[in-house]
Amino acid sequence: MANQIDSLTGQISALADGSSTPVSLAEHSLEQARHQSALNAFVSIEASIVMDQASAATERRKSGRPRSPIDGIPIAVKDNYLTKDYPTTACSDAAPIEPGGVDATIVANLRAAGAIIFAKTNMHEWAFGATNTTSNIGVTRNPHNLDHITGGSSGGSGAAVAAGIVSAALGSDTGGSVRIPSSACGTYGFKPSYGRASRHGVLPLSWSLDAPGPITTALDDIPRLLPYFFGADPKDQSTRSAEAFQAQPPVLRPRLVHLTGRGLERSDEVDATVRNALDSTRAQLCEAELPRISTYFAAWEAILHCEASAYHRRRLEKGAEGYSDVTRAHLEAGKRLTGVELLEAQKVRGQLVRALFDDLPPWDALALPTLPVAAPRHGEDWQKFGGRRVATQDAMTWFCWLGNLAGLPCISIPAGTSLSGLPIGLMLMGRPGRDEDLLAIARIIDNDIGGR
Amino acid sequence: MANQIDSLTGQISALADGSSTPVSLAEHSLEQARHQSALNAFVSIEASIVMDQASAATERRKSGRPRSPIDGIPIAVKDNYLTKDYPTTACSDAAPIEPGGVDATIVANLRAAGAIIFAKTNMHEWAFGATNTTSNIGVTRNPHNLDHITGGSSGGSGAAVAAGIVSAALGSDTGGSVRIPSSACGTYGFKPSYGRASRHGVLPLSWSLDAPGPITTALDDIPRLLPYFFGADPKDQSTRSAEAFQAQPPVLRPRLVHLTGRGLERSDEVDATVRNALDSTRAQLCEAELPRISTYFAAWEAILHCEASAYHRRRLEKGAEGYSDVTRAHLEAGKRLTGVELLEAQKVRGQLVRALFDDLPPWDALALPTLPVAAPRHGEDWQKFGGRRVATQDAMTWFCWLGNLAGLPCISIPAGTSLSGLPIGLMLMGRPGRDEDLLAIARIIDNDIGGR
Repeated sequence: MANQIDSLTGQISALADGSSTPVSLAEHSLEQARHQSALNAFVSIEASIVMDQASAATERRKSGRPRSPIDGIPIAVKDNYLTKDYPTTACSDAAPIEPGGVDATIVANLRAAGAIIFAKTNMHEWAFGATNTTSNIGVTRNPHNLDHITGGSSGGSGAAVAAGIVSAALGSDTGGSVRIPSSACGTYGFKPSYGRASRHGVLPLSWSLDAPGPITTALDDIPRLLPYFFGADPKDQSTRSAEAFQAQPPVLRPRLVHLTGRGLERSDEVDATVRNALDSTRAQLCEAELPRISTYFAAWEAILHCEASAYHRRRLEKGAEGYSDVTRAHLEAGKRLTGVELLEAQKVRGQLVRALFDDLPPWDALALPTLPVAAPRHGEDWQKFGGRRVATQDAMTWFCWLGNLAGLPCISIPAGTSLSGLPIGLMLMGRPGRDEDLLAIARIIDNDIGGR
Repeated sequence: MANQIDSLTGQISALADGSSTPVSLAEHSLEQARHQSALNAFVSIEASIVMDQASAATERRKSGRPRSPIDGIPIAVKDNYLTKDYPTTACSDAAPIEPGGVDATIVANLRAAGAIIFAKTNMHEWAFGATNTTSNIGVTRNPHNLDHITGGSSGGSGAAVAAGIVSAALGSDTGGSVRIPSSACGTYGFKPSYGRASRHGVLPLSWSLDAPGPITTALDDIPRLLPYFFGADPKDQSTRSAEAFQAQPPVLRPRLVHLTGRGLERSDEVDATVRNALDSTRAQLCEAELPRISTYFAAWEAILHCEASAYHRRRLEKGAEGYSDVTRAHLEAGKRLTGVELLEAQKVRGQLVRALFDDLPPWDALALPTLPVAAPRHGEDWQKFGGRRVATQDAMTWFCWLGNLAGLPCISIPAGTSLSGLPIGLMLMGRPGRDEDLLAIARIIDNDIGGR
């Protein structure tokens, strides 16, 4: 963590007042990427691709015609987003290895705004896991301590931002994959509501749960990026235009419900950090149990496994070559679920949404730790917390999947540091479609707890 | 077919001008029901229940305070709609036999308007079939010829209307169950768009395909009944308010596309009748093939079987007692489908919707025969038409399932008579949510072809 980088917001100012140029930002990012190659954060990174974009942006700015405030800012991209210049591998030998030529909608939007598509980041194979330790280019390492994992599946994006290589990176989130590395690496990570952000060109894991989202060094960076994520995309039929999501009057003293109880255990250290953070805010805070967590979790898992196996069906039929053993086992398990079980899971999904609204005290946001533990060490297969022994993989998604199953907007913000110096994140979940309201609430909380 | 009954519209006038009373209508209907008991159209019918409602309605009309224009008109109800006064059996010994006490939303709406809930009609067991020959009270017989079937699953409703016992009856339609008996018995049958009509209190067959709909003696009767079907029902989350379905400018010369080709074969007699009817209209007519019918059909069947098995899961686990062998076999088959197969079917469903809009010439309505043959004889297991030999069950749903899979509004109108004197129906399918437009087009066609 030697390197300090300006936030995206800071870079925007520096470019605007001429104290930086796109070329200087790009050179700094490339130098840091080389310097911190031990993180193994990148799948594809080519200086010539980066510098060509930086030179063009510098020219535009010199001639006083930047395309947007982010024209010339390097942004790293998870390797499941299609990109024109870089190939796309999903960090799997079983991937088709998309050769480039097409941009995902979000990448195309950013590129049209002049952002430098900097590099493709390491990820958990096919996004089917939350540790970033299963990848055909090897594990990703946590900038706070290389012996620890980043979490995943957007681990390379989390590491690149936390290490100050770039100010922002793109991730995708099916059960926490944006928020988990954000919490583990000490960045901000935002998962939009289902239907607000385009997934076109992002290789899917589970189409009814997937959401793309940004990882940034500062909270204010997120609303600067969301216009490139949001809006009705004719290429992603799940998306709705912004008008469908009407802004509500601002919430001055948000009502937070801290979820606890069976299935929502966490380590003492994480619990104390999160409670301490929440207690220091002006929010109206109360605590409530959410029953049936294990039922809801089983539904999330069934939907994820089934949809992932459906997406990979052809590739599996052809022999399933190139998948890691663990990913192949997941995909084979998904094939065995019956349609009736899937429908039952979809029904339970509806029950969760109703329970969140009908069975809890009124809330503007739900609060949880993002992770039940600080970032685990590499090689640790199990985590112990709250009287439980949980596989590290399951510990990573422990809380996060709830937001995907219910389609809520979610954010992870840094809330403190563990005894061993690793970041601890606080998760806030907002009402469906009300992403702007959640960000406004997160800003209040982030200010009050002092931005870590 | 000795008895002639006024249409619902005629009954409305007769009640308004005093030439009929609710009591006289109810007495006529009861007398006809007794007289035509060989049809086996009714599961539950009780004179005291009918006459109590008729007397109350007559009182209201006498005192000049009818609740609505249909106050006092007898309407028959398929035995999968919950009704306060009559039990509900779905014509199965495996049904819970709902003892009454609750009205389905549509029944409650009609009752609040003063309609006489006349009787519960015979149906194909659990609506899981389209012949009305599988029922725990025995087969339903076609009023045009008792040796022939009515089609189903709303066969009792079709028979009761065609026989002039009532002017209107309620059905439900998952793959044609309103339109099939309408075509086979020579009535009008309307299946609304998915999401327009409440299914609350209607025992489901397949919740993503089911739609309730009316069967009537005249086309003008349908718009008089739809207000009791339509609107956002908080008890059926699939329903949307009428505002979501904005009316379009009226279509003066509708563009009809007559669908033909592989998988859409029909008997020469049916083909000639439907072409003759279509040629006699002012519509702009063209013919187009719709490829991949067998793929779409398999998707409809997979979704139906899976959703039905999910609904019946608990009952099946308890031993599957009381189901007929054929219904139990269907439900067991649905349990064997995998989640991946179901997801694939749901994907194909989306492909059908796109194909209907993107791959056909522009259309205001799609035209098909309702059935590929006139009503089969009882005991005929197979139908031969268009070079095919098809199980009678599959011949009944031959065209109709398309409208359910795509969620379109559909109507069957009488278009002619077979050599053997049995009705032949024409089916029109409209654009999703534009039920009023479809009715306006149907009126043009119906006028032009002379209402049979």
